[in-house]
Order: sequence, then C-alpha cells, then structure tokens
Amino acid sequence: MTQRPPTVGIVGAGQLARMMIQAAIPLGIRIELLAASPDDGAAQVATHVAVGDPGSYEAVLALAGRSDVTTFDHELVDVPALERIAAAGHRLHPGPATMAIAQDKGLQHDTFAAAGLPLPRWQRVRSSSDLAAFEDIAGGPLVLKAERGGYDGRGVWLVRDASTASAVLDEAARRGIPLLAEEAVALDREVAVMVVRSPSGAVVTYPVVETVQRDGILHELLVPAPIPAALAVEARELAHRIADLVGVTGVMAVEMFVSGGRLLVNEIATRPHNSGHYSIEGAVTSQFDNHLRAVLDWPLGDTTPTAPAIVTANVLGREDTPDPAAALPHVLAIQGAHPHLYGKTPRPGRKIGHVTVAGSDPASVRKRAIRAAGLLSGAIPLPAKQKQEA
Amino acid sequence: MTQRPPTVGIVGAGQLARMMIQAAIPLGIRIELLAASPDDGAAQVATHVAVGDPGSYEAVLALAGRSDVTTFDHELVDVPALERIAAAGHRLHPGPATMAIAQDKGLQHDTFAAAGLPLPRWQRVRSSSDLAAFEDIAGGPLVLKAERGGYDGRGVWLVRDASTASAVLDEAARRGIPLLAEEAVALDREVAVMVVRSPSGAVVTYPVVETVQRDGILHELLVPAPIPAALAVEARELAHRIADLVGVTGVMAVEMFVSGGRLLVNEIATRPHNSGHYSIEGAVTSQFDNHLRAVLDWPLGDTTPTAPAIVTANVLGREDTPDPAAALPHVLAIQGAHPHLYGKTPRPGRKIGHVTVAGSDPASVRKRAIRAAGLLSGAIPLPAKQKQEA
Repeated sequence: MTQRPPTVGIVGAGQLARMMIQAAIPLGIRIELLAASPDDGAAQVATHVAVGDPGSYEAVLALAGRSDVTTFDHELVDVPALERIAAAGHRLHPGPATMAIAQDKGLQHDTFAAAGLPLPRWQRVRSSSDLAAFEDIAGGPLVLKAERGGYDGRGVWLVRDASTASAVLDEAARRGIPLLAEEAVALDREVAVMVVRSPSGAVVTYPVVETVQRDGILHELLVPAPIPAALAVEARELAHRIADLVGVTGVMAVEMFVSGGRLLVNEIATRPHNSGHYSIEGAVTSQFDNHLRAVLDWPLGDTTPTAPAIVTANVLGREDTPDPAAALPHVLAIQGAHPHLYGKTPRPGRKIGHVTVAGSDPASVRKRAIRAAGLLSGAIPLPAKQKQEA
Repeated sequence: MTQRPPTVGIVGAGQLARMMIQAAIPLGIRIELLAASPDDGAAQVATHVAVGDPGSYEAVLALAGRSDVTTFDHELVDVPALERIAAAGHRLHPGPATMAIAQDKGLQHDTFAAAGLPLPRWQRVRSSSDLAAFEDIAGGPLVLKAERGGYDGRGVWLVRDASTASAVLDEAARRGIPLLAEEAVALDREVAVMVVRSPSGAVVTYPVVETVQRDGILHELLVPAPIPAALAVEARELAHRIADLVGVTGVMAVEMFVSGGRLLVNEIATRPHNSGHYSIEGAVTSQFDNHLRAVLDWPLGDTTPTAPAIVTANVLGREDTPDPAAALPHVLAIQGAHPHLYGKTPRPGRKIGHVTVAGSDPASVRKRAIRAAGLLSGAIPLPAKQKQEA
C-alpha cells in the first residue's frame, strides 16, 4: 500500500486555514496552501505554501493539481475559474455552484425564497424609486446589503431613514455594486447553526449557538443558545435543509434571526465560521476536524458539546492592542481560558483571535471569556505587574 | 511593543515535538526544531527545522541561539554539552541537572532513595557475584535495567532465572553498559502521574492513570486509574515531591507500581509522555499546552478531566499495517474516536499513533479505543467495503 498522505488544498490563508492546519496534524493530512501573502496567519504555520492570488484561475488550478481535494478559507473566489477547474476533473469542496450562492446574497435570497424558507421581507433595489417602493411595504429601518462584495470593508448597512438609504444607494451605484434591501426585523436574538455535509450526502448539525453582535461584528458566542428546545430542533432542521439545498460539501454556517419567536434565515457561509470556533474545545469533534473529514468524504464526527456552557469571545484589534507575549501570561491565569491567536497584525476592529471557556455556569464562563479577550485586545489594561514575577 | 512571537526550541522531532507544534499554533508560539532527519514526525509539520544531531553541542547551541527557551522531545542528549549551553546563558527546560537524572536510572534510584521515596528493592550489579548476592536478598524473578542506554532497542529485561540473568549481565558488560537489578514486584497494576512544574516553582498534577503494559510497552491508558481515592492523592503528592526533588521544568511522567496496595516509584520521564496523551481531548489543558506554558514560565492550566472515562490505545506498527488513508474512514466511523498519527513508517512494535476516546462508560470507551487502534495498526483487518461507498 502507498503511504502517501491525503492532501487537502486550501484557497486562502486566514485563521480558518490556520485552524484547519492544526486539525490536520493528528489525522496525518497534508495541507497545501494558496496564500495571498507569506505573512498570512495560516502561511505562518504551513509547511507547503504557494504565494499567489486566491482569485486567479492559474493559481487555484496549480493548487488543485497538487491536492486530492481543494477547499476554501473564504468566498472571494472566481466562480467561472472554479467551474473550469472542476470540469477538468479536480475535486473542489464546496463546488462552484455552491460557492456562487455563498458569494452572492441576491442568489442566496432567490434560492431560499424559491424553496419557501422563512426570510425577512426583501427586494433588490436599483434606484430611489425601488427603495421608496420597498420602504412603503416594509416600513421602519432597513438593512441594505451588497449582493456581492461591498466597499470600505463593508457589505451591510443599517439605514434608519430615507436620506441615509439614498446616500448608500448612490455610492453603491457609482461603484457598480448591486444592493438588496431587507426589513430590519425586531430581534429577539441572533443564532447560528453549523452544519456539515459530505459529498456522499451525510449530514450532521451542531447545537444552536447565540451570536452576540455589535455593529455587525460577532463579539461573543454563547453555547447552547438560550432558546426553546422546539425552536432549536427547527433551527437545526432548517440548517440541514439549506445544506442539501445549496449542495454544500464541508462545513457551513447558517445565520438566523429569532424574531417574535420565529426563525428567519439571514445568510450562510459555506466554510468553517466564527460561530463554530467554540467546537475546538467545546465539542467532541471540532468544525475544522469535521470540515476535513467532509471534504475527504470520511465519516463525520460527533457534534455533542463537551460541557453544559461554552462561550467564545472574539479578540478585536485596537490601536493599543498589547504584544500577545505580554498579555498571554495574564490570559492563561484565567481558569479554563483557551486563547487562539491568528498571527495577524492588530488593526482597530480586526479579528485577531478568540478565547473559548467551557464550564458549567454560563455567567461565570462568559465573564472569564470576555475578560480574557479584553486582555488580549487591550480593551482591559494589563495588570501592572505579572503574576509570574517573583 | 514588539510583536515577535515567543520562540521555543525543541531538541528532537518525534511525536512529542509533533504534538507540541499542534499546541503551539493557538498560542502563537513559534517552534524551532532540531530534527535528526527531515522525515521525522515533527519535521513534517514544522515550519522552522534544522536537521542535525540532537546529541551534538554545536547543533543544540545553534538551536538555543534561535530560541527564547529550549526543551526536549527525548532524553538522548549530551548533558555536559547542555551544561556549557546553559552556562552561556541559554534557558534550557528541563535543565542539565534534571536531564542527567532523567537519562540515568542509577542516578534516579540514588536520588529517590536518598529522599526516602518508596522503591522496589534494588542494587547496582557489575558481576555475577553482585547478582547472586542480590538474588539472595530479593528472591524470585528480577528486573535488570541499563542505568544508561541499552542495546538491541531495549533497556529493561525481566529475568526469570539465574542463567538468563547471567546472559544479560555478560552481554551488557561486553558492551560497557552498567546495569541495576530490581526485584520484580507483584503488581496490582501500573499507574502514572503527569506533573507540570514551571521555573518559578508552580506545580500542577494530572489525575492518576492506569498504564496497561505488555512486554514493557504501553498498550492502553485508562483514565482515571481505578484505585482508591486516598492512594490517588498519595500518588499525586509523590509526583509533586519528585518534581521538586529533580527540579523539573515542563511536564514530567512519574511511573509507579501499585503492589500490595502500596505505591512504589518505577521511573520518570522529564518530558510529555505517552501516559498523558489522553489529555489532548481528555483534560481542560493538554500536557503539550501545559509543557509550553511551563517552559515559558506562564501560568499552568487546569488539569481536570473533561469526561468521566477516557481511554487512549496505542497504535503499534506491524508487518501488515495498512495505509492510514485506507484505515481512517473506518476509524472515524467509531463514535468519539480521536486518532493521532505520528507520521512514522510502521515497523513491528513501533508506536506510530494513538487513539483517544472519552465518554461516560469505561468499558464502552475502552472497547472503541482498542478497535480504532487495531484498525490503524492492522491487528484488526479492515472491513472489505468502506462504509462511505455507495
């Protein structure tokens, strides 16, 4: 028998690829990486790195040629290029059709609407009259979303009045970015379900998590989400249905709103996701482990949580983010804190890491995770003297 | 502030270094490796590898020069060389004095005996008359141990009669290997305690584990060891005392016999150890995480188990060991099985991996771990048809 290790190519080299590499080591899986820069978080810990444009046909084709199967760190890929690569016989997971849906919120909405899934009221808006017509129907504040891409690092705008809406619409039109408008639903809370689907159609779902967002950025993840059991079952069934609908292979996040006790689908990400980072310590099988299993069409692992309460707090960069080497001794002094650093230079608002704490008391777990993340980000100043010092 | 990551050098590149690398990724620790061969298990997953002789002064000095702190994958190091490197101001953990004790079983016995620790009856044997004198005292079968090194890949011989004993003694004398003799105590069971000690003197111990050995090779690890609570407390206190006694920094395994309800110290290993592999999934903080924390003098992590019953089964190579890529789909179909492959070419009796299963029922957990390890080793033939196939 050959002893050639199974080889998974990853397009993109951010923290998701970095955590996939960590999961690949015990399974003896060889990772081939396509990184935009040798300084990318995953490139720092990868043994086989090609530096190139993850959006380029040639670079992804070369990666696929070195790999048994190719997967993705992000959605910023060229779908027609993927179609050509898949047509040439390379295994891409997720495939081009799924990636097309993942990177296009308009197409997502069309797909979900056609299948009768619960969505906020929405409409494509191309002009002020489209917008005015939709406002007449939806009323109240709106959410404008770039169907594809975005600008100034944003793709979602909460607009409270017509004049703000017009400004966003005009700017997007100037840049050639198509928008859709959604009613800003009254939120009970936001939740997410990670679902894993293999090429042969096996599906597992993780428990429903609550995503605590501020300014559209995930700050904390609470596991399990404090929602009624029947709603949790419904959310997992919905995620399963969407996985089949979009034909995802690998891990997918389904983000949902809970509004008036009902679920509404917000959006999907067809890759490991921030909503599943807790699973590294907090589930029998992590999302990264399950993603690798899925893309190789291996059996999917148990998604049961390992503790009654798990919280992941994101570390968001600031102007005054300390050197991790200075912060870590304080963070590790917090009982059960598992820091994960992404190897990224801090910039205000940039996700540079996360901390997971598992335990039995949700309030205590949450407090510890938030403190640990705050010490790493600089939001909480480091104590003057290190505990370690004599 | 600088953003230079803390750098840990590792002398040797086997599976322990490999699992340290996995633990280093989330902490943002940079690993510098000194590997005997680029094919070594850890070298396959390391980003900064120097190939050289881990026993050489020059190679270890160069490694220490690239590292904030230097640690070890194994004990086969040159202690005088380490002394010179430490004297030059490099931080080595464990230090040369501890490594001297670790690699010399005679010195271990002297150290433990001087501290009044419970040991089997023992004596250095240099001649047949020494051996005869010890047999008169100890009676019954004996264990002969090379004080340092060994031959034919062995360092321990269970000898059932005087003629076998003489043959081992003669061969060792011919090779210049000093031996000690120990009474072969009647075993209730063998246990081990992993203990972690930081340079500033902080100590944590892991729960007592049972090590199920055959022919001197660890086959299974049962967590927690089924021993009375008072004995478990005593074992952990003993491990703590030995950690202070030998001044270990980093993780250490203390292997013990339970004989007639009493603990006797067998031997130590001043590094992460097979007896602690379960901690990757089965403890809040893994031994590899705690080893890195300790050598960097960071706070030590919680050693609480994450499940009521955890079993690790070793994967021992055979002539007919299958390709891991063929075995893994069957192994991953076993609920909760966490395989860890070391990237080593199988040879009969060689440890090439392990599998950990955590759960609530010790018998079920053990059965699953043994089956998974058997599929990986070839001891259990792979089912003819993969479950995955349609």
